[in-house]
Amino acid sequence: MRLIENWFSERYSDNVQLSFRVRDQLLSVKTDYQRIDLFDTYDFGKLLAIDGTVQLTEYDEYIYHEMITMMPFFHSVRKPETALIIGGGDGGAARSLLGLGVRDIVNVEIDSQVVEISKKYFPELAASFSDRRCRLIIGDGIDYVRKSEQKFDLIIIDSTDPEGPAVSLFSREFYEMCAGRLSESGIVVAQSGSPFYQRETFRMAYDGMVHAFPHVKVYTAFIPTYPSGFWSFTMGSNSAMNPVKDMVRGKYFNQEIAEGAFKLPQFMLDDVSTLKGK
Amino acid sequence: MRLIENWFSERYSDNVQLSFRVRDQLLSVKTDYQRIDLFDTYDFGKLLAIDGTVQLTEYDEYIYHEMITMMPFFHSVRKPETALIIGGGDGGAARSLLGLGVRDIVNVEIDSQVVEISKKYFPELAASFSDRRCRLIIGDGIDYVRKSEQKFDLIIIDSTDPEGPAVSLFSREFYEMCAGRLSESGIVVAQSGSPFYQRETFRMAYDGMVHAFPHVKVYTAFIPTYPSGFWSFTMGSNSAMNPVKDMVRGKYFNQEIAEGAFKLPQFMLDDVSTLKGK
Repeated sequence: MRLIENWFSERYSDNVQLSFRVRDQLLSVKTDYQRIDLFDTYDFGKLLAIDGTVQLTEYDEYIYHEMITMMPFFHSVRKPETALIIGGGDGGAARSLLGLGVRDIVNVEIDSQVVEISKKYFPELAASFSDRRCRLIIGDGIDYVRKSEQKFDLIIIDSTDPEGPAVSLFSREFYEMCAGRLSESGIVVAQSGSPFYQRETFRMAYDGMVHAFPHVKVYTAFIPTYPSGFWSFTMGSNSAMNPVKDMVRGKYFNQEIAEGAFKLPQFMLDDVSTLKGK
Repeated sequence: MRLIENWFSERYSDNVQLSFRVRDQLLSVKTDYQRIDLFDTYDFGKLLAIDGTVQLTEYDEYIYHEMITMMPFFHSVRKPETALIIGGGDGGAARSLLGLGVRDIVNVEIDSQVVEISKKYFPELAASFSDRRCRLIIGDGIDYVRKSEQKFDLIIIDSTDPEGPAVSLFSREFYEMCAGRLSESGIVVAQSGSPFYQRETFRMAYDGMVHAFPHVKVYTAFIPTYPSGFWSFTMGSNSAMNPVKDMVRGKYFNQEIAEGAFKLPQFMLDDVSTLKGK
């Protein structure tokens, strides 16, 4: 009889944590950029953590990936054909964009190990990188945006939280560089943290976006394996963003969510209006 | 130096749990109906748990209480003046209704100990029971609904999950009895569990409601201390329910939420359409 239980816990603060019972730890590696751990959990399948925070799990990754891709895709006046993904080394965002018919994707991931691990443990996601429509570049996203001359219909900032390598991805300067790399009616979207536990992350993203773009929209999603279960995304564009008429349905995303996800609770509206007033 | 940490954990399943670091356990009592624990947590202030599940915390109770009261209140054609609360022994639902101007509340709580504990530890919530507009009855909610001849503009089913004393509160028969106790354009609302971890609870409530009422609406809220952070509520009425024009703002609730909270993710719509088709 096995009396030892193994749990992986993510600390949301010093005083709150969510724990997953695991069959096994499949991997733990310190790369040049971060620490990556992979667990085989009972309830969520394989779970990838970076620096101790859940990045994705096999069973609920669809929510994050649908929401970070489908929302901007279906808010663009012209059907998006080209996309730049910053981060997203697991391949999930690219996979969703490929499914939507985007024909030209550049995916810039700084840490080659994330890609290698995803190829081994999340082959359905990493399959994106074998698709001829997707070009994977291992490198620094900020450098890439600075030097690139290509314009994109979508720029997806699928980054870790603003600690370590990702911190500059939440800056006004970076969003301004992105603005210069957008096609007409192009949209930038960034994951912008938990509005509850990471208000500073949300404020950074929102504040940067409103300085870089005339049109900014915030939306939220329920993600059970992320801190507080409640997540924000911030979109910016030089054009007005409105939902298009025909949308596909995901397992989470649908026409209703494409509208309702922009309706924010009062504590978020208060944050937003403070930042707009600055 | 104190090396021992005290944590209270709620199991969401055998394999997932959320834990709160606590300064102290203030109380643990086995009543005739349930086990009640009270903790002084670092991040959420005082936390009340019944049978091991978080009922409310000092710092985020406003979300649940606003959402279970303001949503039906502002979906009633006629301004609600009378309300019946089943459960809600902490006084939070009554407090919110009093704030909205409801002039006649009957609050039926089965467990007098919940009320006593709330009076001692959540005096701001339990103050409702000292208000002359609120009549507290210690007794069985189903019995009360069966025998009462009064009609109410709102019936709020602020119960624990459908285990132990609360199970019958999720039945078709009970909702049908409630339908008979509603004034014209009156609304019944029930907390209907986490759409993620407690799909069976949600299905019970929804299935019961659609059999008892011609008009049923489901809405959700983000509640960080409840399982998965995502919670559902189900409203039923004999009349159409539409948002009224003028609403107050809470700390969570507002005019936007009064619309957006009804926009459901696809996995919930799938559940709902299966149940409607039965």
